[in-house]
Amino acid sequence: MLQERDRPIGVFDSGIGGLTVVQEITRLLPNERIVYFGDTARVPYGTKSKESVIRFSKDNANVLLKYDVKVIVIACNTSTSWALNVLKREYAMPVIGVIEPGSRCAVQTTRKKRVGVIATQSTVASGKYVKTIQRFLKTARVFQKSCPLFVPLVEEGWLDHKVTENVALEYLTDLKKNDIDVLILGCTHYPLLKPVLQKVMGKNVTLVDSATETAREVKSLLERENLLRYSRHPAHHEFLVSDEPEHFRAMAKRFLGHDLPHVRRVDHV
Amino acid sequence: MLQERDRPIGVFDSGIGGLTVVQEITRLLPNERIVYFGDTARVPYGTKSKESVIRFSKDNANVLLKYDVKVIVIACNTSTSWALNVLKREYAMPVIGVIEPGSRCAVQTTRKKRVGVIATQSTVASGKYVKTIQRFLKTARVFQKSCPLFVPLVEEGWLDHKVTENVALEYLTDLKKNDIDVLILGCTHYPLLKPVLQKVMGKNVTLVDSATETAREVKSLLERENLLRYSRHPAHHEFLVSDEPEHFRAMAKRFLGHDLPHVRRVDHV
Repeated sequence: MLQERDRPIGVFDSGIGGLTVVQEITRLLPNERIVYFGDTARVPYGTKSKESVIRFSKDNANVLLKYDVKVIVIACNTSTSWALNVLKREYAMPVIGVIEPGSRCAVQTTRKKRVGVIATQSTVASGKYVKTIQRFLKTARVFQKSCPLFVPLVEEGWLDHKVTENVALEYLTDLKKNDIDVLILGCTHYPLLKPVLQKVMGKNVTLVDSATETAREVKSLLERENLLRYSRHPAHHEFLVSDEPEHFRAMAKRFLGHDLPHVRRVDHV
Repeated sequence: MLQERDRPIGVFDSGIGGLTVVQEITRLLPNERIVYFGDTARVPYGTKSKESVIRFSKDNANVLLKYDVKVIVIACNTSTSWALNVLKREYAMPVIGVIEPGSRCAVQTTRKKRVGVIATQSTVASGKYVKTIQRFLKTARVFQKSCPLFVPLVEEGWLDHKVTENVALEYLTDLKKNDIDVLILGCTHYPLLKPVLQKVMGKNVTLVDSATETAREVKSLLERENLLRYSRHPAHHEFLVSDEPEHFRAMAKRFLGHDLPHVRRVDHV
């Protein structure tokens, strides 16, 4: 039996986007072991309903439980929107989502108290960002915009493509008119579009990447609960997916900048 | 117990695209009842593996069997690519896919014996179009191109958008260089992009829409098997989905040009 602190951090996402969170966690907490599960057989979640997203999120958490994780990180904004409270209520261990960390950072950053949020349709429909930001700063104005084409553009690898810039111009024009000074990237795919998003929004708008903020939240939770892993042995990670691993590996290389040696398929439903 | 010929036609797709096939079937066979199932909880299939697509397709066929259908139409190219032969082998009733009808029409149309196919990644990877076309015309040259952004662009409703035209230009440039005279729209979403695709390919390239061809195949099968429904009562259709019905209904209006009154969710897995 492993000591509690030596148990891995569990991270799940609908697919590949959560790897941006994994990357930030490993940067901040290089000693930690991570078990990642991507539900690549049912990706994407961003166009799907509350009921389906809650059901899928429970399935995913159950995969991670089999790996004896010490904390569950929901590295997906849509899952966090609908399932964070459900999982917190139904599971004994700590559960961290991506919406609170990003919202907290946005509130600390905005001077105009005008915050933009770009996300999937399902995340926008949940209203969770609006609620969370205004819980931290009652007088904040929040402007949301769903951007359904950003995920497929990232998956296609058109990160720096003229088409992507034109799509961003179309999606972001109204947000720009709202005179925001902070824009939350409310989907774990979007950090890969940072250069084009910054170009379109202009340099006076700060982009908030929930991956970085979430990793910080994981760190302070582990410190608080005395769950940090100390070891001279390098941490070994596991990557699990519900569809075949090859497409995931190819995409992961783009996300992480290096190969993932071990990706395994699990039949989870 | 219904007479065999009065039983409905079962149609399934990964989501909404198969409605283009439903539309053609109702146009050609207005007396026929249709039960449609869209697996909207797991859409899309086009980026997923053979194993997952076969598993999903069997689940979908099993939903239709509960409605006592007389024939199963796989109104999805990716499902047809991987699961048509499996379903034909494992189910007693006739099963029709969308690849043979489209391929047959392309072969009858091409003069240059040079056929283009645009489809999802999974359909292209299966090689089924190449195999089927060359079974009909051994000397045909087939040029494939996967177009992952077309489905999200259709779902976003950007049918006549400058961005869509630019994406089409990028995807189709190589196909144009191959001097094809026929282009198969190898995904049931693509017929909605016909105007922009025709504009990009030019008027000397004939677009083959598998929806129309598949409906003809359904008709000749029903005639051959003496299964046509004759009735003075208008046909009543049923539309079933695996995720919540609202998004499907909104999209369906775009596909069919009118409202679908009854869309129900079924829990099928």
